[in-house]
Amino acid sequence: MVVLASGCRDAFLQQKREATMLVELLCLLVFSVRLAHYAKVIPRDKFWKDPKNICIIVVLLLTLTDMIIYGGLKAANCYSVRWSRVLRPLLLINVTEGRQLRRAFRSIRNALPEISYVFVLFIFSVLIFSLMALKLLSKRDLKTIEGTPYFTNYLEIVFELYVLVTTANSPDVMMPAYNKSSVFAIFFILYILINTYIFMSVFLAVVFNNYKKYLKEEIQQLVRAKRHKMVRAFGVLQEQKEGGQPVVSHENWNKLVRQVRPDISNAHKELLWRVCDDDNQGFIGKVAFVQLADLLNIEVITLKSRPHPLESIIPNLYQSGPSRLLCRVVQHWGFVIAFDLIILVNAVFIGLDEENPLISNSEWFFLAIYVLEILLKLYVFEPRAFFSKHSFWNWFDTIVVFAALIATIINSALKSSGGYTSRQVLDIVFILRVLRLIRVVDRIERFRAIINTLIRIGPAILTFGQLILVVYYIFAMVGMELFKNKVKFYEDLSNPESTYCGNPLLKGSTFAQLGYCKNNFNNVVSSFILLLELTVVNQWHDILLHKHPPMLTAVTHKSALIFFVLFHVLVVIIIINIFVAFVLEAFFVEYSLGKGDLQTSLERKIEELELAVAQEKLEDNLVNAMETIDNDLGTGQSPTANLPTLLFKVASKRYRTVDALLQRMFEADLDPEDFAENDIPEDQTGNFANPTFATA
Amino acid sequence: MVVLASGCRDAFLQQKREATMLVELLCLLVFSVRLAHYAKVIPRDKFWKDPKNICIIVVLLLTLTDMIIYGGLKAANCYSVRWSRVLRPLLLINVTEGRQLRRAFRSIRNALPEISYVFVLFIFSVLIFSLMALKLLSKRDLKTIEGTPYFTNYLEIVFELYVLVTTANSPDVMMPAYNKSSVFAIFFILYILINTYIFMSVFLAVVFNNYKKYLKEEIQQLVRAKRHKMVRAFGVLQEQKEGGQPVVSHENWNKLVRQVRPDISNAHKELLWRVCDDDNQGFIGKVAFVQLADLLNIEVITLKSRPHPLESIIPNLYQSGPSRLLCRVVQHWGFVIAFDLIILVNAVFIGLDEENPLISNSEWFFLAIYVLEILLKLYVFEPRAFFSKHSFWNWFDTIVVFAALIATIINSALKSSGGYTSRQVLDIVFILRVLRLIRVVDRIERFRAIINTLIRIGPAILTFGQLILVVYYIFAMVGMELFKNKVKFYEDLSNPESTYCGNPLLKGSTFAQLGYCKNNFNNVVSSFILLLELTVVNQWHDILLHKHPPMLTAVTHKSALIFFVLFHVLVVIIIINIFVAFVLEAFFVEYSLGKGDLQTSLERKIEELELAVAQEKLEDNLVNAMETIDNDLGTGQSPTANLPTLLFKVASKRYRTVDALLQRMFEADLDPEDFAENDIPEDQTGNFANPTFATA
Repeated sequence: MVVLASGCRDAFLQQKREATMLVELLCLLVFSVRLAHYAKVIPRDKFWKDPKNICIIVVLLLTLTDMIIYGGLKAANCYSVRWSRVLRPLLLINVTEGRQLRRAFRSIRNALPEISYVFVLFIFSVLIFSLMALKLLSKRDLKTIEGTPYFTNYLEIVFELYVLVTTANSPDVMMPAYNKSSVFAIFFILYILINTYIFMSVFLAVVFNNYKKYLKEEIQQLVRAKRHKMVRAFGVLQEQKEGGQPVVSHENWNKLVRQVRPDISNAHKELLWRVCDDDNQGFIGKVAFVQLADLLNIEVITLKSRPHPLESIIPNLYQSGPSRLLCRVVQHWGFVIAFDLIILVNAVFIGLDEENPLISNSEWFFLAIYVLEILLKLYVFEPRAFFSKHSFWNWFDTIVVFAALIATIINSALKSSGGYTSRQVLDIVFILRVLRLIRVVDRIERFRAIINTLIRIGPAILTFGQLILVVYYIFAMVGMELFKNKVKFYEDLSNPESTYCGNPLLKGSTFAQLGYCKNNFNNVVSSFILLLELTVVNQWHDILLHKHPPMLTAVTHKSALIFFVLFHVLVVIIIINIFVAFVLEAFFVEYSLGKGDLQTSLERKIEELELAVAQEKLEDNLVNAMETIDNDLGTGQSPTANLPTLLFKVASKRYRTVDALLQRMFEADLDPEDFAENDIPEDQTGNFANPTFATA
Repeated sequence: MVVLASGCRDAFLQQKREATMLVELLCLLVFSVRLAHYAKVIPRDKFWKDPKNICIIVVLLLTLTDMIIYGGLKAANCYSVRWSRVLRPLLLINVTEGRQLRRAFRSIRNALPEISYVFVLFIFSVLIFSLMALKLLSKRDLKTIEGTPYFTNYLEIVFELYVLVTTANSPDVMMPAYNKSSVFAIFFILYILINTYIFMSVFLAVVFNNYKKYLKEEIQQLVRAKRHKMVRAFGVLQEQKEGGQPVVSHENWNKLVRQVRPDISNAHKELLWRVCDDDNQGFIGKVAFVQLADLLNIEVITLKSRPHPLESIIPNLYQSGPSRLLCRVVQHWGFVIAFDLIILVNAVFIGLDEENPLISNSEWFFLAIYVLEILLKLYVFEPRAFFSKHSFWNWFDTIVVFAALIATIINSALKSSGGYTSRQVLDIVFILRVLRLIRVVDRIERFRAIINTLIRIGPAILTFGQLILVVYYIFAMVGMELFKNKVKFYEDLSNPESTYCGNPLLKGSTFAQLGYCKNNFNNVVSSFILLLELTVVNQWHDILLHKHPPMLTAVTHKSALIFFVLFHVLVVIIIINIFVAFVLEAFFVEYSLGKGDLQTSLERKIEELELAVAQEKLEDNLVNAMETIDNDLGTGQSPTANLPTLLFKVASKRYRTVDALLQRMFEADLDPEDFAENDIPEDQTGNFANPTFATA
């Protein structure tokens, strides 16, 4: 019976393995086809000069080799390791879409030498302190709280003090010495001050500074390459006008813009032309032409007053006294405050016990109120403006409220039909209900400003997300090879093995006592969560080493230590610091700088042409009553004649791309007149093979 | 017997109390006398306008009142609280010497509104997440590892999640939900991402930015006030020269400098004059005159080649062949490397077991080697140059080696006399031995650069030390009133009470199990150490709340929570962030900026006059062969005649005062031509009453 079951499992595992390998082969095929396509499109010498392509080819070949070896060994029932899995992130980094990621990695790689100096100094400091601790404490016969000798082995001291830098074992490591004499506390205070506070700050400073330096250089190169390409485009389009100055006519410029960005409206195009051709000459010079790429990157909201559809359908009713009163009420600030109060009351009700029928029924009341609010707003404001692309909170509100409505209906239907409540549906209902409360934040201007900044740096944060995912993936793969199934988690807590995670070595260990069995490397999901816990740093020494009683490294090898220290240095010291530095920099840019030069001149032009949306109107939220037109190409009539009914507004410092944000960050250090007439080698900018570059 | 002992103790406590109060009265008297002296020196209306003086008077009166009430109540055997102790730091802040501290506090106070917005948003986020956790997890009958219900009470969830922001309970708080289903990990990951990483970075950004903004304003005011005073001094000293331009003659300028800084040499003075009077006219205008204060703040090292004293005593021997060879050997880079290797070997020996007679005797060998090294260097280099003010590492070496020599001799004398080894002496020996190893760092240039930056910002770090001490003191006082003697520490571990810290409520608690009994508020020392542990944050919930089994807040009141959250916000979120920000800023200034304008012009002038110490010489450490003359006033001869034998060097960006460092940080934003001719109200600069200001 057992043999049969085990045979079954083996067969199942076999099948699973085959399926995974099939998927992998498919992926390899896709990458190969993609690469072959590239090789066809791009000139031969360029293709072979690009390190990205070579890297992809090498990784593909290595993966194929690994798969063959693995398959062969498995067929012969030998143990083998799928080592090529570690290489997979290289594919992700090297495909063209990974540009942000590639840049981040390059910056980190360039900053490494400087960081390593500080790191060596830091390690030296830890070693010196450890030596001092050994001399001061090893002969005093102190015991840890578990009864093991305290601070007697140099390597263990180094390890404990390294852990102390991460503050994970903060008072515990000090207690035996401190209990002996308060004087020893001075040693630990000095240690924490120097290594935790000062050195970690220095790390942040050095990481920040170097990362920024290299990122700036990259952005500078990118901007230079962009300008260079614009100059070349200028060379193609130019005509010789009076005075011998090469210029581009309005007509050619229009054609170009229509080709590059078919989605922008004629009015918007006209506006951009006016910014370029400030003197109304009908043609523009090189300097003005080169701006175009940046100009297109500034998001301009085109607004158009448009009557409410109900006004044309039932004009009498919509214009009647009660209807006008209703509009005034909904637009009154008291209406907003009333709904804020309702949300607060709702928050209290959510917090109360769900079992109470009064509470659970009140949900229907609140839902009705919220739906009513949205309907009222739709009655007052023009619907297409209400759901325009830039009205984030309106979308958020509507989606959350209606999703909650649907989920609540499904839930009560399930309940009344079989008395059965689906936990999943209920969870969704709860989450949606709580999400509704977030809206209150938007009401207070200061909060909105902070959140807007966060949303603005969102895309850049996602780049870090990718970066961390790639690093996590590599560590997860290595961790799975090293530590897989050393620790098991049992869903069934009554299983006696669950008290020691299925590993007799862990009997009575802190790891098992704290119930950390699920913190293991048995599959990708739990590996990622475990790595996240290691990133947060607290308790990592317990998690990773399954320490004591049978002393350090009972279950895992000492290599676990190297694994963690590498992870800590790479993720916590470098990447998290870069992340913090990035958020800092973004906030400083927000605080210290106004708008960019180009943006300012665009806004000035809008003002000049008297097309600006009045500021008070905007702040009054009345912008909702206007419509955003994003596709207004069919009009055909002269755009200038069209202008008076249109209003423009430069979107409040939103960046279409991460590049634009970065360029904005380093704008002060970039020379606007630097056209880099002297050719930069194509391959140095590293962007030739990038088909998406032209739109950047 | 017990009654008698208790009576004795009472009498002892009574005596101790009386002694403390006597000391306190004395202190009050000193402060009052000081204040009375001030009131006499400073004009009456200025004195009463200064908020510092009024604050001191109020604190003194309140303290006196408190002492009288306390004495009366104690005499009547009533319980009373010495609440005025909390006010004591105000005295420290408000005495004139606390200027740095006052400025730091002012900056924090000014930055508070902006910080509080982010804080409210952050708390809102915690509350929303807690509500979501309550709805998602409370009905699932989950249990914590201790068997108590998991996430059922809203306030407890809020608390747990607040603790999670500090990462102190990192995986534990997640484990029950994670064990139930991996999906819940998403909730915690999102929470940590948003609240720990993003919000804490935003805090750092906002704190940094606001602190810097207000500090810059203060420094700007200070610089303006300084310039204003210099302009007034100019008005007093000016003479009308040809062309009607008011100028100051060399003679008057010399007199002024001699009065302000009697310690600088004639040659140095001459150099400064040449920087001011660039065109060699014999007089200087207002702009050049106003620079004087800043010029005096630049540290100039005056160097003078001087023969070795042995050369004049025994010229034949010193100039002989073997002696010259010795000099060459000592100055050779191989000598340095040889000693680095010896230090490394020494490090290994220190790490080995002391009991081994070979090891303990080797210490004599190493000591002899080190003493020999110092003697050799003294033979080769001029002794007064070797021990000049700026040769930090020479001083360090010599002191550490000779202190170790003395301590080792004392130790072996004690050992051989009675076979008794004093632990204290041995500890000192060990510490000194390990300290010797630090010297290796100085050999590598990159390390030296980092350490120099750290030393440079040292004084500013001390200001933060004061700041933290003041805040610690206030919290220690409040903590002692609230929590004193709730937990007792027993030196004697065999005492059964020691297993539960003398408090039956703590039987079986984590707090007692981890042996945290000494983490208490029973006296000032342990309070400070406890607060430091709270600053490091890890395990603070165990330390402060003595949680579980008898649930939260068994020993201490729920007020402990408020106490900690206040402490956390003030110390960890605000002050530590400012500290980090300060270190960051100092490093950025180091990285991004070169030397200041004035410093550059001073260096240029030194170059011009061909008085510069050759750069290679300096780097070759040969600067040690030159002598620093700090008092060279008696020469009387024309300083210019003296010049060729003297060499100058601007000390590598060392700042005499924290103000100079701060001014340097914000230099780019200060207008050098802004003389603020329009009077600033004296009291606004807030520095009239400050007698030390004139030297700043």
